[in-house]
Amino acid sequence: MKVGGRHFRTIWLKPNDERVVQLIDQRFLPHRFVTEDVRTVEQMGTAIQEMHVRGAGLIGASAGYGMYLAAIEAASRGPFDEHMACAAARLRETRPTAANLSWAIERQLKSIADGKTAEEKVALALRTARLIADEDVEHCRLIGQHGSNLIREIAQTNAGEPVNVLTHCNAGWLAFVDYGSATAPIYAAHDSGLPVHVWVAETRPRNQGSKLTAWELGQHGVPHTVITDSAAGHLMQHGRVDLVIVGTDRTTYTGDVANKIGTYLKALAAKANNVPFYVALPSSSIDWEMQDGLNEIPIEERDADEIRHADGWFDGQQVAVGIVPEGSPAANYGFDVTPRHLVTSLITERGVCEANEKGIFSLFPEHAP
Amino acid sequence: MKVGGRHFRTIWLKPNDERVVQLIDQRFLPHRFVTEDVRTVEQMGTAIQEMHVRGAGLIGASAGYGMYLAAIEAASRGPFDEHMACAAARLRETRPTAANLSWAIERQLKSIADGKTAEEKVALALRTARLIADEDVEHCRLIGQHGSNLIREIAQTNAGEPVNVLTHCNAGWLAFVDYGSATAPIYAAHDSGLPVHVWVAETRPRNQGSKLTAWELGQHGVPHTVITDSAAGHLMQHGRVDLVIVGTDRTTYTGDVANKIGTYLKALAAKANNVPFYVALPSSSIDWEMQDGLNEIPIEERDADEIRHADGWFDGQQVAVGIVPEGSPAANYGFDVTPRHLVTSLITERGVCEANEKGIFSLFPEHAP
Repeated sequence: MKVGGRHFRTIWLKPNDERVVQLIDQRFLPHRFVTEDVRTVEQMGTAIQEMHVRGAGLIGASAGYGMYLAAIEAASRGPFDEHMACAAARLRETRPTAANLSWAIERQLKSIADGKTAEEKVALALRTARLIADEDVEHCRLIGQHGSNLIREIAQTNAGEPVNVLTHCNAGWLAFVDYGSATAPIYAAHDSGLPVHVWVAETRPRNQGSKLTAWELGQHGVPHTVITDSAAGHLMQHGRVDLVIVGTDRTTYTGDVANKIGTYLKALAAKANNVPFYVALPSSSIDWEMQDGLNEIPIEERDADEIRHADGWFDGQQVAVGIVPEGSPAANYGFDVTPRHLVTSLITERGVCEANEKGIFSLFPEHAP
Repeated sequence: MKVGGRHFRTIWLKPNDERVVQLIDQRFLPHRFVTEDVRTVEQMGTAIQEMHVRGAGLIGASAGYGMYLAAIEAASRGPFDEHMACAAARLRETRPTAANLSWAIERQLKSIADGKTAEEKVALALRTARLIADEDVEHCRLIGQHGSNLIREIAQTNAGEPVNVLTHCNAGWLAFVDYGSATAPIYAAHDSGLPVHVWVAETRPRNQGSKLTAWELGQHGVPHTVITDSAAGHLMQHGRVDLVIVGTDRTTYTGDVANKIGTYLKALAAKANNVPFYVALPSSSIDWEMQDGLNEIPIEERDADEIRHADGWFDGQQVAVGIVPEGSPAANYGFDVTPRHLVTSLITERGVCEANEKGIFSLFPEHAP
């Protein structure tokens, strides 16, 4: 998507030096647009863990590139397989809830195994890292096509009024390599001339909604309004939300959806007010092993300091202000699980399906038991 | 309740100068404990509107004292009735959702009408202002007694584990004159030796949860943990909330509950997870005219800057940091309405009742049609 009129992906190889990965360091958005050079798998581990990069698809793509950097290291330092196993373990521990992380790591390990020499293995790792990123872009583009049809259907009954989409957190292009999952249908609808307005839930504690989604939509010219996470129910009660679209960090093959903390509350409100609740995802976010989302998906618990502070911009500098009394403990659960019965449909790269085994296997029969 | 070991109410007459009202200016908590001298009804209007004072009972008590200050002014400036009508109108416009506001103003107007001279009217206004505040304290104390029985019942089945109460916003003593509504049962239970732990939802955008409720509970030694507003559903899904207690800014005689934005989402999650959802309120918060909460209760829309910023403490000063991109609009709905069918019971000064006409009129038969 465009930043100041120039096209960017979230992650890419440095022109003229393919041993360096470059990415947008999202910690400084929307205040500053900063890019970072990543040269080692350890640096990539830090970038993922400390959320320079975040979001389902981008975590996968970053892990893919991280494994490529690990392969370069392994070729010079060896022993190759031990170094790769160690790199895989380092990356796997960074974000426990994200399905794309282990998906990309396993894909790289499998791909690299086909190489006979270290040189071949590095070349394969590079090809696979690129493939993961390019597929992510293409899958998000297809999600945009399928999802924009849902927006078009509503627009046709809306008498020219904007279609109001509510989203939570950032499942935008910043969370993928391009287009985004939840935002792809919005961009596609907007670009095709449909009137769309987005309610952007700010998404405490890290405010990926107000900081990233609002910035993305603003850069692309999509009308939007930032709200508190708490406001979604009120808006739905008063008919001001036509549909919800969110992303997911891991969805079970049975249709249970782990996503940013607070998604579940929005799904409950959507159900209670007959608002369609869609989850947009490339199949790389589906966990084909996991049956019971609520009891099986590991929920990342992050540093309580994220709750105890709010990070923003003041007097020309980025500062974290304290918002909790000195002696008060805080707890920071990163995700929650929305049970399948609250999900109207999943929007995938292969089309729209019900959030259950039957629906998912109908689009992805190669994974059916 | 106690602040640094010393007993405070939230509002009182200045010792040795009863023409001055003093109050805790809550905008600076938890960072600084600041009191303010209020000498005119206009100053009181500002204090209510700009939330130096806030919360159902305290808005009522402040309006009561504000009308007393207006009476002092009316006695010296006259014409008495016109000045009082004007003062009432000024106060009424400050916070549209709060039922206690017009309740206290009407009560003062009625009381003052009994005075024959300006001097008598001022004396009556003083007596009524004190009465409103003292009744608020007594009603909250009684709510504490009734509500702590509900906590005790859960404690008896909890095998010594703490009873986990979740609350939203601040319906603590800072929101009333003393004790609070939602917190009164918690304080009473804690003081009687029951093990209680409180999940404090931070309550964006003004963070009355993390700033006020956490501070109150900390000052009184009640174990608590601050969470995002989004985390309530996740905690309930995993059995970590035994009951919810919230306050209300206005409850219809049919049991619909207006309270801080986000209350509705917590009520939906409580219902979905079989967690009892209680609303604690003195009867002064009941609107005896209003039947349909969702369609009739006016919802205050506050300045979007509260969404665009987070206010906190940095480097020894209180600052508001920007958390929304420059060009992005925001909307700030202050309250939402929780329909009666999501409310397990109301906890009032006269006891616990169902959230419907039958339940409410059984405790307050003098209001029955």
